[in-house]
Amino acid sequence: MSSIFTKIVSGEIPSYKIAEDVQHLAFLDAMPLVKGHTLVIPKKEIDFIFDLENEDFKNLWSFAQTVAKKLEKAYPTQRIAVAVVGLEVPHAHIHLIPIDKMDDMNFRNERLKLSVDEYRQIQDTILNS
Amino acid sequence: MSSIFTKIVSGEIPSYKIAEDVQHLAFLDAMPLVKGHTLVIPKKEIDFIFDLENEDFKNLWSFAQTVAKKLEKAYPTQRIAVAVVGLEVPHAHIHLIPIDKMDDMNFRNERLKLSVDEYRQIQDTILNS
Repeated sequence: MSSIFTKIVSGEIPSYKIAEDVQHLAFLDAMPLVKGHTLVIPKKEIDFIFDLENEDFKNLWSFAQTVAKKLEKAYPTQRIAVAVVGLEVPHAHIHLIPIDKMDDMNFRNERLKLSVDEYRQIQDTILNS
Repeated sequence: MSSIFTKIVSGEIPSYKIAEDVQHLAFLDAMPLVKGHTLVIPKKEIDFIFDLENEDFKNLWSFAQTVAKKLEKAYPTQRIAVAVVGLEVPHAHIHLIPIDKMDDMNFRNERLKLSVDEYRQIQDTILNS
């Protein structure tokens, strides 16, 4: 069965896309810790990020760097934090999270409930940065 | 003033090293969340990880992949989690954390207090994996 992220890649499940190239996709997390919380994935469905071929692994991070630089401009917080957990969805993904303090990236925090309009506004803010 | 990590690179501050090449160093975190919690740094002192030149950024992650594969063998947990926070020490560093559950990588958790012997044992376990 395809992972939920593969369905996002194919468009079967809608998402708020931030950046895309042939091998990678970045889109807004559907359960964001903060505004701008973005997921970066390889389109190829692989469970564990470190199992990617070295070249694919490096290219994924390179793509993530480009996305992080967009987020930095859109959300001038202290840092764009990075997390890879890998226990939730069996399709490797990098969390990029604009943070001002350590606890902003605590996955135990309650997630934001955003309206469609709010998601679109965040997407526009990032795309226009 | 040199960062604490630059002093670790130079040997001015001792550390339990896991892997090293010309540009990178991996060593055990002095305030570990779990056994095997490792930091990966570029030797070059740069504050924000995304400010690394793209080639240096990719090479840092490539080095981290090698270290993560060693940790996987030494600590066969569910995942080797990744975190870059960047608010603590102004020298870019990647946390690699062997986890069985999401909360193992919660930075609010109490840190392990390990003896020198325990650190050496962890270092040996990883080096021999």
